[in-house]
Amino acid sequence: MSIKPSLSKGTRDFGPEQFVRRQYIIDTIKNAFELFGFQPLETPAIEKLSTLTGKYGDEGDQLLFKILRSGDYLKKVSDELLASRDVKSILPFISERGLRYDLTVPFARYVVMNQDKISFPFKRYQIQTVWRADRPQKGRYQEFYQCDADIIGSDSLLNEAELIQIIQKVYRELKIDGIEIKLNNRKILQGIAEEIGAGDNFTELTIAIDKLDKIGIDKVVDELLGRGLDQNSVDQLKTFLTFNGSITETLEFLENKLVNSEIGKKGIEEMKSLFSYLGETEKIKLDITLARGLSYYTGTIIEVVPLGTDMKSSINGGGRYDDLTGVFGMPNLSGVGFSFGLDRIYDIMLELDLFNDIDLNQSKLLFINFDENCQNYTYKILGKLREKGIKAEIYPSPTNKVKMKKQMKYANDRKFPFVVITGSDEMDSGLLSLKNMATGEQEKVTVEELLLRLG
Amino acid sequence: MSIKPSLSKGTRDFGPEQFVRRQYIIDTIKNAFELFGFQPLETPAIEKLSTLTGKYGDEGDQLLFKILRSGDYLKKVSDELLASRDVKSILPFISERGLRYDLTVPFARYVVMNQDKISFPFKRYQIQTVWRADRPQKGRYQEFYQCDADIIGSDSLLNEAELIQIIQKVYRELKIDGIEIKLNNRKILQGIAEEIGAGDNFTELTIAIDKLDKIGIDKVVDELLGRGLDQNSVDQLKTFLTFNGSITETLEFLENKLVNSEIGKKGIEEMKSLFSYLGETEKIKLDITLARGLSYYTGTIIEVVPLGTDMKSSINGGGRYDDLTGVFGMPNLSGVGFSFGLDRIYDIMLELDLFNDIDLNQSKLLFINFDENCQNYTYKILGKLREKGIKAEIYPSPTNKVKMKKQMKYANDRKFPFVVITGSDEMDSGLLSLKNMATGEQEKVTVEELLLRLG
Repeated sequence: MSIKPSLSKGTRDFGPEQFVRRQYIIDTIKNAFELFGFQPLETPAIEKLSTLTGKYGDEGDQLLFKILRSGDYLKKVSDELLASRDVKSILPFISERGLRYDLTVPFARYVVMNQDKISFPFKRYQIQTVWRADRPQKGRYQEFYQCDADIIGSDSLLNEAELIQIIQKVYRELKIDGIEIKLNNRKILQGIAEEIGAGDNFTELTIAIDKLDKIGIDKVVDELLGRGLDQNSVDQLKTFLTFNGSITETLEFLENKLVNSEIGKKGIEEMKSLFSYLGETEKIKLDITLARGLSYYTGTIIEVVPLGTDMKSSINGGGRYDDLTGVFGMPNLSGVGFSFGLDRIYDIMLELDLFNDIDLNQSKLLFINFDENCQNYTYKILGKLREKGIKAEIYPSPTNKVKMKKQMKYANDRKFPFVVITGSDEMDSGLLSLKNMATGEQEKVTVEELLLRLG
Repeated sequence: MSIKPSLSKGTRDFGPEQFVRRQYIIDTIKNAFELFGFQPLETPAIEKLSTLTGKYGDEGDQLLFKILRSGDYLKKVSDELLASRDVKSILPFISERGLRYDLTVPFARYVVMNQDKISFPFKRYQIQTVWRADRPQKGRYQEFYQCDADIIGSDSLLNEAELIQIIQKVYRELKIDGIEIKLNNRKILQGIAEEIGAGDNFTELTIAIDKLDKIGIDKVVDELLGRGLDQNSVDQLKTFLTFNGSITETLEFLENKLVNSEIGKKGIEEMKSLFSYLGETEKIKLDITLARGLSYYTGTIIEVVPLGTDMKSSINGGGRYDDLTGVFGMPNLSGVGFSFGLDRIYDIMLELDLFNDIDLNQSKLLFINFDENCQNYTYKILGKLREKGIKAEIYPSPTNKVKMKKQMKYANDRKFPFVVITGSDEMDSGLLSLKNMATGEQEKVTVEELLLRLG
């Protein structure tokens, strides 16, 4: 009995063409990371649930993929507990491990476990799959890649400057022109919260501001009033959220506004340093409405949005944190990191036709396999091509098993630029019939000419 | 409260040095695959259990990692079933997905799902992680890489020849000289079974022969007698298992022995073709005691064992199958494939000191960060180096925050070959102090000289 196979929901196969295109993006990112001195790290897909749980909020815990214990997985569950059907209480007895939800928590675990061996500041990059049991929808998968870079063990803003330069370099090389790099600083947001008398509601404030792009200023205001902010605070907040200006104008505006908040002033100072390191630079916006929901950021926050495409979501996100490793017993280690969204970058490049020029790394030549004699003769020539590093192939069966027409169709489908057809004439003369598949032209060449042509 | 973090059993982190070394092996294998025209494929880690279960025998089913359903995972389990504690019967209601156990079954699933788009013969390679809930021990992990190449949709023995040439090329490039490529053919084994009157016990026979290396001929004989083979059959089998000779001698021996078995004669014929394609070649042995346990092989079987190292296990395995995709509703598609054992190759290279010459892809230069002035001055030079693709870094904090001594220690630990120290003298003169970290020598160079030196 056979079953019709299918993919598990929210997962994908990447066939040869997609693979090569994705690899092109990954290599571009990887090369930029390495140019800036980041070192590679790989952590396992499977982590203990004790490492993962509680790091991503309640919603994140729900979205963790949990692995069932091997063998008699109910062994440790008492009859009473089992009968209770309390899945939350039963869980720790039937599952102790889960799949990586992001690359940040495994990185923090690695740093803490290897702190004696690591030379800080530690600049690491990591390009691996992560898994989330999210409801799949267009552009959202249960299994996807993250491409992260972090510098941990240094609070210098030069690190932020380098991360931004990496972003600029990557999009320059991918030829994605339309991007905006939005920067803000959590300390500025804290300053605003203090200044408008909502210092105690900082978390609610950032969560609401985070939705500004999606729901608009009026709904943000409603939400904040609903969460207990008073009208006066909200009115003041509006002047911040509706401000628009150049980097210099925004910094001036903030300096005039945040006069009583020490942390706010610190945030402005940090932004000034960062912009001085960046020098004259384009595509950057100081966006004081940028909040980034995740609560562990404490300084600079970064987000990159694409312009002029169907893609409305951010393609990079990151920021500075002061206590990523604290939860694993190594407090006060400042770091800054960010992530490239591979799937979204892929979709943009597809939309903008940016994959056209990419070398699909195809074989250059197919030897048609006429008969056993031809096979033996050309197989030796094939060996010479491969010795020179030229990608070439021979059709594995002769024409008495697979007809010439079908072999030529194979050459077409696989997009070989050239085929060689070798009959007894060719073997006698030592000249090969080389056919250009694009033009249909056919010419006679020696093996040496062939090596030169394709080498 | 903080927890001391640890890895899940049977899993590993790969820090920068290990990563680069592993990547070197992977790239060598990948380049060989591509030179021979194999195309990349990536399949998801998560597959439906209906895709995975029943493909690896009972033991394999036990070793599959199963993923717990999200949310109320007990919802579909009746009270009665739950109370039964029958974990096997409960399983399908609480888990519908699992982790990839090998790359072969996902490949078969992909081929069947994409049969209309694929040009056969389809040559694919796949280098990805697989998971097995095996008891971890030295050299055996629960999460590890497989590096597979398969050609499906062609029964030509030229495919086997190419796979063997890939193996030879990879070990030549990795400089692992001591290998033996063992070849056999399942049809020859079937012929032997028929010849000795044990045609009905073929599976038991292969399983027992498979253990020959580990338990020796006497115990294999005992096992087979225990499994119901008669003394006469076993005595005849012994003459096969103890035969030793060159490829030509072995083929002759078989031709004289397997006179009554059609399938046996077919197997000899296939081996003769294969050796004619391979031509004069070294490191190859026709080993009629090679069986390879997995039951789906039907023709050529391949195994590579390392010689002269502590590693006793095979580092490649593979063979020809005739019905890999039948279970998914696409019967009679012949193919041949094999796998490189990355972890074992890594261990051998470590043992043989073969990683010494590998470029760890390190940054070449660190700019010591003296003070804010020096930082601004050198950061511009750093930009020029990076524009030329030279990997270089600046220490992110000046000496009033991190002392010179600590910065120099960082340069040492990270193994930068050069550092540049820039004081006011250097900035005035435009000459940089370049220090060679290996020799301790220090010299003055211009920016242009620096670019030339490191470019």
